[in-house]
Amino acid sequence: LYLCQDNETAMVRLHGIIPPLPTSFHDNEKLYPEKIRENIGALFRYDISGIVVMGSNGEFVMLSEGEKEKVYAAAREAVPAGKLLIAGTGAQSTLETIRLTKLAARQEADAALVLNPFYYKGMMTPEVLIRHYHDVAEASTIPIIIYNMPSYSGVDMTALTILKIASHPNIIGIKDSDGNIVKLGEVIRESREDFSVLAGSAEFLLPALVIGARGGIMALANLLPRKCIEIMKHFEEDRLDEARKIQQSIIPLNTAMAKKWGVPALKAAMDHLGMYGGPVRRPLMALEDRKREILVKMLDTYMELGL
Amino acid sequence: LYLCQDNETAMVRLHGIIPPLPTSFHDNEKLYPEKIRENIGALFRYDISGIVVMGSNGEFVMLSEGEKEKVYAAAREAVPAGKLLIAGTGAQSTLETIRLTKLAARQEADAALVLNPFYYKGMMTPEVLIRHYHDVAEASTIPIIIYNMPSYSGVDMTALTILKIASHPNIIGIKDSDGNIVKLGEVIRESREDFSVLAGSAEFLLPALVIGARGGIMALANLLPRKCIEIMKHFEEDRLDEARKIQQSIIPLNTAMAKKWGVPALKAAMDHLGMYGGPVRRPLMALEDRKREILVKMLDTYMELGL
Amino acid sequence: LYLCQDNETAMVRLHGIIPPLPTSFHDNEKLYPEKIRENIGALFRYDISGIVVMGSNGEFVMLSEGEKEKVYAAAREAVPAGKLLIAGTGAQSTLETIRLTKLAARQEADAALVLNPFYYKGMMTPEVLIRHYHDVAEASTIPIIIYNMPSYSGVDMTALTILKIASHPNIIGIKDSDGNIVKLGEVIRESREDFSVLAGSAEFLLPALVIGARGGIMALANLLPRKCIEIMKHFEEDRLDEARKIQQSIIPLNTAMAKKWGVPALKAAMDHLGMYGGPVRRPLMALEDRKREILVKMLDTYMELGL
Amino acid sequence: LYLCQDNETAMVRLHGIIPPLPTSFHDNEKLYPEKIRENIGALFRYDISGIVVMGSNGEFVMLSEGEKEKVYAAAREAVPAGKLLIAGTGAQSTLETIRLTKLAARQEADAALVLNPFYYKGMMTPEVLIRHYHDVAEASTIPIIIYNMPSYSGVDMTALTILKIASHPNIIGIKDSDGNIVKLGEVIRESREDFSVLAGSAEFLLPALVIGARGGIMALANLLPRKCIEIMKHFEEDRLDEARKIQQSIIPLNTAMAKKWGVPALKAAMDHLGMYGGPVRRPLMALEDRKREILVKMLDTYMELGL
Repeated sequence: LYLCQDNETAMVRLHGIIPPLPTSFHDNEKLYPEKIRENIGALFRYDISGIVVMGSNGEFVMLSEGEKEKVYAAAREAVPAGKLLIAGTGAQSTLETIRLTKLAARQEADAALVLNPFYYKGMMTPEVLIRHYHDVAEASTIPIIIYNMPSYSGVDMTALTILKIASHPNIIGIKDSDGNIVKLGEVIRESREDFSVLAGSAEFLLPALVIGARGGIMALANLLPRKCIEIMKHFEEDRLDEARKIQQSIIPLNTAMAKKWGVPALKAAMDHLGMYGGPVRRPLMALEDRKREILVKMLDTYMELGL
Repeated sequence: LYLCQDNETAMVRLHGIIPPLPTSFHDNEKLYPEKIRENIGALFRYDISGIVVMGSNGEFVMLSEGEKEKVYAAAREAVPAGKLLIAGTGAQSTLETIRLTKLAARQEADAALVLNPFYYKGMMTPEVLIRHYHDVAEASTIPIIIYNMPSYSGVDMTALTILKIASHPNIIGIKDSDGNIVKLGEVIRESREDFSVLAGSAEFLLPALVIGARGGIMALANLLPRKCIEIMKHFEEDRLDEARKIQQSIIPLNTAMAKKWGVPALKAAMDHLGMYGGPVRRPLMALEDRKREILVKMLDTYMELGL
Repeated sequence: LYLCQDNETAMVRLHGIIPPLPTSFHDNEKLYPEKIRENIGALFRYDISGIVVMGSNGEFVMLSEGEKEKVYAAAREAVPAGKLLIAGTGAQSTLETIRLTKLAARQEADAALVLNPFYYKGMMTPEVLIRHYHDVAEASTIPIIIYNMPSYSGVDMTALTILKIASHPNIIGIKDSDGNIVKLGEVIRESREDFSVLAGSAEFLLPALVIGARGGIMALANLLPRKCIEIMKHFEEDRLDEARKIQQSIIPLNTAMAKKWGVPALKAAMDHLGMYGGPVRRPLMALEDRKREILVKMLDTYMELGL
Repeated sequence: LYLCQDNETAMVRLHGIIPPLPTSFHDNEKLYPEKIRENIGALFRYDISGIVVMGSNGEFVMLSEGEKEKVYAAAREAVPAGKLLIAGTGAQSTLETIRLTKLAARQEADAALVLNPFYYKGMMTPEVLIRHYHDVAEASTIPIIIYNMPSYSGVDMTALTILKIASHPNIIGIKDSDGNIVKLGEVIRESREDFSVLAGSAEFLLPALVIGARGGIMALANLLPRKCIEIMKHFEEDRLDEARKIQQSIIPLNTAMAKKWGVPALKAAMDHLGMYGGPVRRPLMALEDRKREILVKMLDTYMELGL
């Protein structure tokens, strides 16, 4: 159980495999909440711990505040009791981040995933980032998860900055998509026991677990949830060789899908697997046919081997 | 005259010095439109060609759509007839960019300055960027100016990409803040006669003019408009030595202000010069006292020498 | 045993902990071969598998060809039978790399560690790098180890390039100092069984072992050889928690020493531990007093806890 | 006249167009001094101010000390009296740089072009670089020219560091290949009158002249010396439009040749123009046929227009 009701306050423990859901659109780029709910339903047939909406894979930078609230609401209806709904609420200004976090809380999200502000790169000093996160954590009734995503944001928070942010009691973990395993180790070593580090990509899930991470929020879990869960289980039950074998096997798909081709590939893959991928919002473009073919072939191979 | 009424369509010719205005806030971070109008009034005592609102110096990433429209409206009231109001309208999605551009047109902005989408860096291929700009240019009743700002966006558009974007008749120029003088030269050489390249920073105004730029949109023009205008005049009247002397003299202030300390320094400097700088929006922080002292000393030196 | 005599050819199997020795100089910057031998003697009191001379920690870029040969010779005298002497022989030209590799072979080095050429960065295409390594491997009587060191060389070879280089039978492994654990995993998965991946830094030794690395060539092994060896042993005997504890404990020293302060810190630390560190060659500078004090305090803490 | 004999000491004034000569090799990669002399002879039919040997275009990282001395000697024989022979002597160690500079002086080079050491990037602090250059300048009987080449070295010296290095009286100028026109301006503004800034690439020659540079050391001057000289002349005689026209016209060739394809393209172009290009040293590869065809077509167009 990931939500421990404790007197008045809910404690959220981050653990396990958590897919960051893409956002479903109609062909005219309008929001398609029904499909969001259906996809969530499909994912919870597996033993995942929860779901993220409005992360990078959810094209959060493409949606207005009003649309974001609709996504939070749609997700809440579909996420089963006892499972986590994590809402991406990061924005460039502290005020907007707080506003979005309150919208998420109103829609009963269990926690908010907050990407650091990044546009004014040189001005994003440790001091600025720490104050931002603490202001948001203070203002929020739901716990905050740090989101470090340097390949998109262009800002890579150091272990020291992360640890200072993590000192706030309402900040409960980090999704790190950078894959610097040494930095993850430093954060784990120096943070309090109930602060959770989550791998931000399936490609380094096992190494992250080995140095003390508690799970992962990773695009590939939308497609191969069972494989991701098996890596964790084998690891937790000391079957390192088994874990390594699966870890190695999922990297090629992860590289093609999450790293090189991004959200359009994730949506194309979901379409192929019988979920709803649908169109991306412009300026993103649908995956080219040539790449779609390669992707489909990879997916079919995985399916034959048992997703 | 920068607006040539020609039958039904207005032709906008980009030329001269154009300050990108910071956005005025109250102490509680709320928008302060009166001060925006006052600052614009103060700037138009100099022979500038127009003004940009909602650029990077205008903290555009910190404002909601509704607030942006208010800024467009406030600026329109204050910009004199025959002078340019350029409205920043770039966003991550094509739809939002079009929406903002239409708001700007409704508020009678003369042109829209469109920063390229950049969050999904690896997916911002030339094809994606070209389609984005052309979709926006098609949908817009006012002309579009490209905005290349790699140090904030993390995406640097190549000369070739810029030229392909520039092929659309409703795209009339570029503000380039990167300062790659060779790239500017290539764009100038290969673009049509009525496409204008504008320097995005005062520090390379003269070299840009020498290779064919038509002016500049640059933060320093909020503080030293006369100096910037003089560089252009000396250049246009073949007094290269005079132009070089002023160019050299403004670089130290530009480096301190625009490059290293950013918007908080710009606002502190405006406060010192009797305009309204006021607070920045969080997470940005007010300029530290130590830096403010250095800045004030620099400004006083410039003022003694005659701004 | 790491050298398996097999009919006429010696098979070299890379495995275990291998310190890359700094090069000893007199106060006048002249080579000090006696101290090289003494240091090697001191290190082989621990169960290390071999030693590297003329790596990055050995200031190889500072020595002439003649000096390099003297270092190879001095090391050979001191390395015990059955243990590996690995000689750094990388240079910018293929001819010089071959020449140095032959000098190393003449001095009976067991293998050559070859950093890729890197000066002409844009021209170092996969094709160029593959031909370079294969030319060297063809010309060499001793086996070749690839050396990927992007933070110094500015060139980061991809998994695909490494795998193509590794296809040559005389190329037996790679020291990777980049720490991209996913890339290491890809190389391990796709390379032949007798190709060995070695961690190039102590800070990611355990994660590297977990995904299939066979050991490490890392500066910290000059100072804390026992700790490095223990990580491997605990890992090999399935005591992951023990391994993780030591892995976590050595990172602060590694960060200070190997990452931030480099060779001057390594030499200062050796001086403090009773080995010969001695001066660095100019332009490098001796570690500042302030940093030396921090370093000494860290080392003393480690020694109290039992190096 | 560029060498002013003044009592005992020779004053070297850096001014004008100076090609950095590629190094000629036989087909077996051996040095070919006759061709070096012939090429120099051919270049001095134009009004260039001197020549550089053992720069980046001279593949200096591929040659041994002995070979470098042979190149200095061959060049000395061929450079006419009153013209500058500038010898590249930079190396990673201060000792080797001094040794090479003395070899160059012995071969009567007029000045040494010293690339900063760069391998240990993080350790190349301003302090380290300043001491290095001052040690070399002290030890040298010939004047020293700083060489900033970040795209190959990976180290970009700041204006402040350059100015501190330039404070030594035996350091007379800089070749800057980075093309940051603002930085060049700062160095020019703050350095003493007899310190010369030279553009390190033809692509930004005119902008550099406009802010006060005195000429350029640039690969393209091996192919289009007349065009480079004309840019300078037009500029010096206030024909800015003429200068700009030529500046713009040479960029496409420069981009293809110097920037994208490097030394192999330079040599291929020289072969086509009737000079001796010859082979490059491995690992560099001869220009691919496809690229050679494009290059030849470009060169022919330039020749028709009058080189």
